[in-house]
Order: sequence, then structure tokens, then C-alpha cells
Amino acid sequence: MPLFTELARSLPATIPFVGPEALERRMGLRFRARLGANESVFGPSPNVVEAMARAARDSWAYGDPEQYELKAAIAAHHGLAMETIAIGEGIDGLLGHLVHLAADPGDTVVTSYGAYPTFNYHVAGHGAKLDFVAYRHDDHEDPDELIERAKALRPKLLYFANPDNPTGSWHDAVAIERLINAVPEETILVLDEAYSDLAPEGALPSIALMRPNLLRFRTFSKAYGMAGVRVAYVVGDPATVGQFDKVRNHFGVSRIAQAGAVAALADQAYLMDVTRQIVAARDELAAIARRANMTPLPSATNFVAIDCGGDGHYARALLAAVLKRGAFIRMPGVAPLDRMIRVSVGRPDDLALFEDALAGAIDEVGRPSA
Amino acid sequence: MPLFTELARSLPATIPFVGPEALERRMGLRFRARLGANESVFGPSPNVVEAMARAARDSWAYGDPEQYELKAAIAAHHGLAMETIAIGEGIDGLLGHLVHLAADPGDTVVTSYGAYPTFNYHVAGHGAKLDFVAYRHDDHEDPDELIERAKALRPKLLYFANPDNPTGSWHDAVAIERLINAVPEETILVLDEAYSDLAPEGALPSIALMRPNLLRFRTFSKAYGMAGVRVAYVVGDPATVGQFDKVRNHFGVSRIAQAGAVAALADQAYLMDVTRQIVAARDELAAIARRANMTPLPSATNFVAIDCGGDGHYARALLAAVLKRGAFIRMPGVAPLDRMIRVSVGRPDDLALFEDALAGAIDEVGRPSA
Repeated sequence: MPLFTELARSLPATIPFVGPEALERRMGLRFRARLGANESVFGPSPNVVEAMARAARDSWAYGDPEQYELKAAIAAHHGLAMETIAIGEGIDGLLGHLVHLAADPGDTVVTSYGAYPTFNYHVAGHGAKLDFVAYRHDDHEDPDELIERAKALRPKLLYFANPDNPTGSWHDAVAIERLINAVPEETILVLDEAYSDLAPEGALPSIALMRPNLLRFRTFSKAYGMAGVRVAYVVGDPATVGQFDKVRNHFGVSRIAQAGAVAALADQAYLMDVTRQIVAARDELAAIARRANMTPLPSATNFVAIDCGGDGHYARALLAAVLKRGAFIRMPGVAPLDRMIRVSVGRPDDLALFEDALAGAIDEVGRPSA
Repeated sequence: MPLFTELARSLPATIPFVGPEALERRMGLRFRARLGANESVFGPSPNVVEAMARAARDSWAYGDPEQYELKAAIAAHHGLAMETIAIGEGIDGLLGHLVHLAADPGDTVVTSYGAYPTFNYHVAGHGAKLDFVAYRHDDHEDPDELIERAKALRPKLLYFANPDNPTGSWHDAVAIERLINAVPEETILVLDEAYSDLAPEGALPSIALMRPNLLRFRTFSKAYGMAGVRVAYVVGDPATVGQFDKVRNHFGVSRIAQAGAVAALADQAYLMDVTRQIVAARDELAAIARRANMTPLPSATNFVAIDCGGDGHYARALLAAVLKRGAFIRMPGVAPLDRMIRVSVGRPDDLALFEDALAGAIDEVGRPSA
């Protein structure tokens, strides 16, 4: 008799994103610019760092398993009731719980081909079946096709990121509201808004828009600069959000994370300042791409996807050549998105280093064949 | 069509341990002594606090999803290979993943009646069926009966805590090795050793003892004083431990937690010093119980279970009266263990406050009827 379930035995021991630390160990080098994980090199507010250092001293005590203060702060920030919010160990942690709650083995889940791999990892981890819709030719997710597929398959979950990773593209609130209203009643729309704090005016429906089958995921990892801290939340109808209490790791959001996130919300001036720096760095990244005769995609995030002009083989070769020059970047995993490399924003030094690395990489691997 | 699975709909939205913060909000008071969650009021090493404050500044970056440095430090600490270790967001987080990997809905899991509720929560969360063995009359888990039950039911998981929570009792290494060797090959022995750092000489089998169906859980929450940080690990056969890579939240152990745990392992002198303080406080807690004409149970942990001499109704009334006097303590949930209250160690001030609260509580609720 085997020790683990048939499902567990069928799964690969995998990691959706290999960390830069692992690459450094494997390649025997130190990255001098860390631009691959859509982190914010600008960091969190100094108030956040101070609040976390203070909480470190109190960390002999478990954090509040109801995360009351943080939940109240998030609710106040959005003008919502606390019951509409659940907090977890990053969006990744919340997605794992959601798949656990909503999908039985064999159930169908729909996403875009090339969208967030960690969501797919959790779907596979619960034995549900992934069905994919292609990105549009303009490298946007395809809401119309996703709606059609959802109507045909009646999936348990439909994943949609706005703004999108890995392309950086976005849809406007009108398109998102149309998607929300068109999704079958029995399908939960998993609206990943990790990059919402960086979204342009008009891209986000009101946060007060609630449906029993709508969950919107927000995080402190991106614009708030707290990726390493692990704290995110989901907003939705109280009856839906309340499901997370059935399977979550109650003490999983650390005392430090809770204190840090409260401080982050309280310093909106810092967020606005960082947002300006991110936008400026994004423009500079686009300019770097153009100077290299490559095509930057418009971005509503803290990264820029750069169309290298070739196929996946070319982009992978170019990526490897950039990595070995000390700049950590990543790229989408599957065609046709894998003709791109994906570069997170950085400080001027980081971007200069990337530009040099890219130039050197192009010298090494050449231009894509026509 | 419902949004959530039949299993999810059948589960209560519950919380195995209501936090002291929630009790404070509910009761409208502030606890002046926090002695209910088996935390270490002595806190972590100052080096840990410093390492975490430093890591807070770097927390714009995700932590290493392979937790390489921490894994190497744990491996070196135990003299084991890194492949024998998986790290997670507290033992709670690891237990959730284990149930996910090993138990299908309807599968059987065996534990002791009154043992760790969070394990039971995860078992229920995956639809497995709990079967219980009673504690022995001497308030120890009953390895003989657990072995018999496991041989009869061939469960997927068998939970055993050594030293035990909520009783504080322990078995010696000989008894544990007998349990390890007697468990059916297809049953994973879930050996929860959260309090191992406080265990007396001779209570723990060698950490190098490996079986494909044995997993040993260790944590930085108890003796290391890092409950609020959320970092724990599991030791076992590499093929077994490797299963966690199939379903875990890769970035879930924060950068701060990883840095703190590395620093904690490096300061064994602090651990020894704290252990002495814990043992002294445990003795004082036992003396307090005796002065109140109650019976402290021998403890190999950082808490003392106190037999109040009555039934569950009496202990619950007493507990409520202690709480309202500003001392946060807890008690086991089910009979016959619920004749006890459970008090974590504290500093002299904390213990004096508890002694006063206990005396006042006894004045209020009286002595148990004979």
C-alpha cells in the first residue's frame, strides 16, 4: 500500500518559479541586479520597516489569527465591511486555499495559456483539470473567448489577471465588469489584481462591486514593496470570503506581516511616491528595449515584457546570456508569449546594468533570424 | 449549482484556537499575563531579533523558495542531509500539506482523543475520517492502544505528540521507537515534536532514525521563542519529505522567518539559558498549583496542565474566572482532559499575577463538589 494518495503520487515535485538564489548557486555567480520577480527594489515605506522591526521584538507571541487590526485597516482603506476580506500568506497561499475549497478532482478550471503558473500548480495539486484559452494576438487575455469557454464548460474557477502578468497588459473596468456579469453563476471568477495599485485610471471596477462568484485578490508584494513578507488579501461577498475560514492556516500570517501591512496602508504618500518611480523606471525600460531594437509592450505593472523579435528558442538563449552577465530577469514559459523576456523595474543603476547585459547578450547570441 | 465543493459546504467556518486578542475584544479587557498559547515570554535570542530587523529592510525581495541557507543550517544542526528536511509556515502549515498529500476523502486517520485540534481541523478539511484512542488513565497518550488501533484500521496517518500537548506528558525514546517500529508500513507516523527542545534526556529517539513512514515535526515557535514568526520543519526519509514540494506555498516562509531561524540555531547558548528559565518557571507553576490545592501534572514542555479536581464544568468556570482577572490561559477541550487548565510558563511577574487570579477565581467559583 502506498503512503501517499494516487493524486499526490501523480504530481511532480516542482517549483513554479525557481528563485534567483537557486540560479546563483547553480550558475556560480551573484546577480548584481534583481529584476526577475516583479519585486519592488524601491522597498516598503521606512515606517513599514520600523513597524516590522518593532514587531520582531514581540514575535514570541503568535499573531492575531483573526488579523483584526489589519482587516480593519484594509476595510477602512477600501470603505468596505471587514466581513468582505480574508487575509493570507500571499496571493499564492490564498489561491491554494481557494482551489481546495472549490474544485474536486476532475473538475474543470479555465485560465489563459501562459498565465500565472502558481495558480495552475494549485489546480494540479487538487486534481482539477485545466482548460486554456489563448491570449489574443495583441498579447492581452481574451475576455470574450474566456466567457465563451466558461459558458461551454461551466468551470469551477475562471482565472483572470488585471493588470496581467506576464504581459503587463490591462483591460478597462468596462471590459472587466462585462466579464464579471457574463461568467456563469456557478463559476467563481478569480480576479487577480496583484498589480492593481499600479493600474491606470479606469482599469479597475469599483472594489465595492460584489458578486457571490467574484473574488478579487490584492497584495502587499508589489507596489507596497513587501514581497518577502507574505501578506495579501481577497475581497468578496462575505458568504464567499467566509469559506477561507474552513481550511486556512490560522496563524500563518505572521505578527510581523500584520504589523507591516498596517503601516503600509497608513503611508499612502509613500505609495504614491514609489508609484511615480515605478512609472519612470518602466518608461526607461521601454526606452532600453527600443534602443536595443526590440519592442516593449505597454505595461500597467512594475515590469515590462519585451518582444525580442524571435521565437522562444531565441528568447531563452538571450535570457541565459543576460543572466550570466549578472542581471536576473525571467520570461514567459510558453508560446507565443515566450518570444518575450520580462524585466522588472529597478533603480537607475539596475537598469543601466540590464542595458549593458542586454547589449552584451545580443552581441553573443546575435539577432533573431527573420 | 453550488460554488464550493460538497466537502467545503459541510465544514464549519471555525478556528481551532481563538486568539487572546479576540477574547480581549469580546470581554472588553486587556490581559496582563499571556500564558495561554504555550508561547515563550522569554522571547527569541537578541541575535534573532536583530537578524529579523535586518531582514525586514530586505523584505522587498521574496525569500528563497528553496530555503537553502536555513535548510543547510538545520541539516548541520542535526548532522543530517538537507534532503531529509522540509520547511513550512509552522507545524500547522506542514500538517495541512501532509493531510493533503496522504489522505483522500473517507480515508482513516488516528489520533488521541483530546490531542492537537489543529491536526483534526486539517483532517476534516480534507474529508478524512478521524478515529480516536483515549488517553491513558495517567494522562499520557496510549502507544499500545494506538498501535492496536492502527493495526486494525490501517489508517493513512497516526498522530502522536512527544512531549505531549495539552498534558505536558512524555514517553521515553524506547517507547517511541517501539511505536515507530510497530506502526503499519502504509501508515505515516506523524510525530509532533514541537516541544522536543524542552524534552528531558532520553525522551527522544535519535533524529537520524528514519523510516519511509515516519515524519518528525520540529518548530521555532516554542523553546526558540518565535511563535509569531511562523517557521517549522519536518525531518524524514528524503522520498517522503520530498512530497511536500508537490503542494507547498513555495514563498510562504518569509525572508524574515528564514533569517531569524538561521540566527536562532546559531545561538544555542541562548536556547540553553532560556531552557533553564522555562524549567524554573515550570517548577514555580507546579508550586502555585499545589498552593491552590490543585494537582500539577509533570511536564516536559513550556506549560503545566493543572488538574483542578473537578469536572469540565468546574474547570471551564474556573478558567472564565481566571481570564476575567487578566490572565490568559487555556484548557483542553474534551473529557476527561477538560478537568484541567493549561498554563504556559511566564516571568515571575506573570506567574504572580496568575497565582492571584487563580486564588480570586477559586474564591468566586468555589471548590469542586466532591
